[in-house]
Amino acid sequence: MSLSKDTLQVPGFLANGIHVGIKAEGKKDLALLFSTVPSKAVGMFTTNSFKAAPVLIDMEKIESGVAQAILTNSGNANAATGAEGYRDGLATSRIAADGLHIADELVLVASTGIIGQPLPVDKIAGGIGRLVAGLSPQGFTAAEEAIMTTDKFPKIALRKGIIGRKEVTLCGLAKGAGMICPNMATMLAFFVTDADVDASALRSLFRHSVDKTFNAITVDGCMSTNDTVLLLANGIAGNRTVRNGSRAYALFREMLLETMIELSQAIVSDGEGATKVIDVNVTGASSIAEAKKAAYAVANSNLVKTAFFGGDPNWGRIISALGSAGVRMVADSVTVHFEDVAVFAAGMGVRGVEEKLAGIMTSPCIRLRVDLAAGERSFRVLASDLGFDYIKINAHYHT
Amino acid sequence: MSLSKDTLQVPGFLANGIHVGIKAEGKKDLALLFSTVPSKAVGMFTTNSFKAAPVLIDMEKIESGVAQAILTNSGNANAATGAEGYRDGLATSRIAADGLHIADELVLVASTGIIGQPLPVDKIAGGIGRLVAGLSPQGFTAAEEAIMTTDKFPKIALRKGIIGRKEVTLCGLAKGAGMICPNMATMLAFFVTDADVDASALRSLFRHSVDKTFNAITVDGCMSTNDTVLLLANGIAGNRTVRNGSRAYALFREMLLETMIELSQAIVSDGEGATKVIDVNVTGASSIAEAKKAAYAVANSNLVKTAFFGGDPNWGRIISALGSAGVRMVADSVTVHFEDVAVFAAGMGVRGVEEKLAGIMTSPCIRLRVDLAAGERSFRVLASDLGFDYIKINAHYHT
Repeated sequence: MSLSKDTLQVPGFLANGIHVGIKAEGKKDLALLFSTVPSKAVGMFTTNSFKAAPVLIDMEKIESGVAQAILTNSGNANAATGAEGYRDGLATSRIAADGLHIADELVLVASTGIIGQPLPVDKIAGGIGRLVAGLSPQGFTAAEEAIMTTDKFPKIALRKGIIGRKEVTLCGLAKGAGMICPNMATMLAFFVTDADVDASALRSLFRHSVDKTFNAITVDGCMSTNDTVLLLANGIAGNRTVRNGSRAYALFREMLLETMIELSQAIVSDGEGATKVIDVNVTGASSIAEAKKAAYAVANSNLVKTAFFGGDPNWGRIISALGSAGVRMVADSVTVHFEDVAVFAAGMGVRGVEEKLAGIMTSPCIRLRVDLAAGERSFRVLASDLGFDYIKINAHYHT
Repeated sequence: MSLSKDTLQVPGFLANGIHVGIKAEGKKDLALLFSTVPSKAVGMFTTNSFKAAPVLIDMEKIESGVAQAILTNSGNANAATGAEGYRDGLATSRIAADGLHIADELVLVASTGIIGQPLPVDKIAGGIGRLVAGLSPQGFTAAEEAIMTTDKFPKIALRKGIIGRKEVTLCGLAKGAGMICPNMATMLAFFVTDADVDASALRSLFRHSVDKTFNAITVDGCMSTNDTVLLLANGIAGNRTVRNGSRAYALFREMLLETMIELSQAIVSDGEGATKVIDVNVTGASSIAEAKKAAYAVANSNLVKTAFFGGDPNWGRIISALGSAGVRMVADSVTVHFEDVAVFAAGMGVRGVEEKLAGIMTSPCIRLRVDLAAGERSFRVLASDLGFDYIKINAHYHT
């Protein structure tokens, strides 16, 4: 579906994004998502030991299971800013709450950008009146623009579905994970829906979908101090409440998973300097943890990533990465496929497949299948390749 | 000490390196190290699940604790070659044994180069007569040349010491670990000494030194199918036997450790595309395993490595990498130093150190100190930075 400002609406939600002076050159840097009524809310956050102030604040607030607004600034991560940063984060949440005339507890905050610099609270305070006044049902594209940093394109997904004759809408906004300018990889993704979903169902749906998507992508194996995924469900659609185990549950989970797949794939495609997406599917593992370890060993291998950048179907690097992952496998029974072409089996390379592989390597997305022959578990991860632009972007920015 | 052919000798050892046609353009590709008498022998090998045939062969042979020769070819790794590769590896060891008129059990083998291609046994067989005939006490530089692949410079270290009035000599040859041409990172290092060392002392000395050196370097976090470190001690010096706990033990350990430090640092300096060595020292960990995990998280972070390449003292990337390592730390008490300059403490960046850091970043080797404030254990790892040439070398080689 084409996403114009007019189709991009979710009943009961308003949004806006403006420039308040945190980023240079008039670029939008402050976003607000607002539900006209308090929403059920769930979130997942970075497990980095150095969590940014907004992450610490949201982790506490989300415990209540209720929220009504998400205030996000770009250009400053409010990370590695100590107790001062925590106070600053709380101050901006109060500023938004006052502007919206809602309780402070209902405002979540997120930040992305430079780390180790004090958050410019005054700029945010100075802009809040304008930000709130401009809230509109058509404001999602402006909000998306205001959370982007080095993203080359906006990442918005929309799905509609019917639950018991009522139409429900789900919209997701995301920003990229490619070691975003200037200091580190921050991935932010916000989902809002008018569906009425039971709190327990919401939590399980959300966790399931995040694990299959945002927790299964890698650009450079780095996890930032600010990574945040939030979902607000305000129930305005008036559908029969989605509960665990119901048919509506399966339907809504499908909607959520689809939007998350779309946005997480967009993040990988937009990885800094990326020219190809590598879809690594490890099967035959003795546990999901082992499958994940093997998949990430391949997906994060610089040797594998540079080979894909160079268009080289270098299976030797794949088995070398696999072999060093420290996971259970039956080495002589391990198989590796590029798409449907077997390249490694019985401990040896398969001969005579060079021509087929050359064709496959020209594709922008290449599926790798690795069977460890040690069990029944699997894990799939999307990775970007590694090229000159990654170095250019990350070596030549000076704080 | 300057290492001319004449100073580079170890009593009782002969060496040679020649071209037999495995590599192109007449480059040396077959090396032999030979002890005139059977030597005590110890080895450590890659833990990769896909071990190359020569690794599997040596792991069996080294069990006896005795060896007399090491035959190494470059240009072909004899890896991912299945049962055929194993037979080929055994065949070359027999060829060398016949040429040297010693028992097959006394010949160790090593290979480095292209993987997945049959070992050209006939070329090795055809050259063995010439290789053996050319063995000489001055042959170490030729042997080194024949084990190199994409190494930009030879890596040879020599140490002499006095044990109970007898002079003992130790010589090490190594080739680099920078995802060596064309398929993967192979690190080979061979040490020969005329010292008389008790078998148990030799094992503990060797393991201790390898763990502190070759097991503590990283170019790109990849471990190859062929990594091998071997040590032969033939006892020709006639010194009083070095035993566990003796003064001679400490002296010889120092000699071995020094040569290993020298060669492992040379490997990092010669990492593909490397312009800087990053010396990461993690202290205050609750266990050595945790210290190691944290040190490698920093040393293998592409964000950290590209920052160093760009001369950017980006401590934000260091704490982000640390924070995602999943190790115990007291986040508010963690400190990070560049050389003697504190850059991160009390959860925040240290202000006003930019000028000092700019000076430090121009050095070819930069020491990072990270204190996790969670215990007493430490681990140190040497890493190379990540620049354009890494991509160039690894993306643009096609098998």
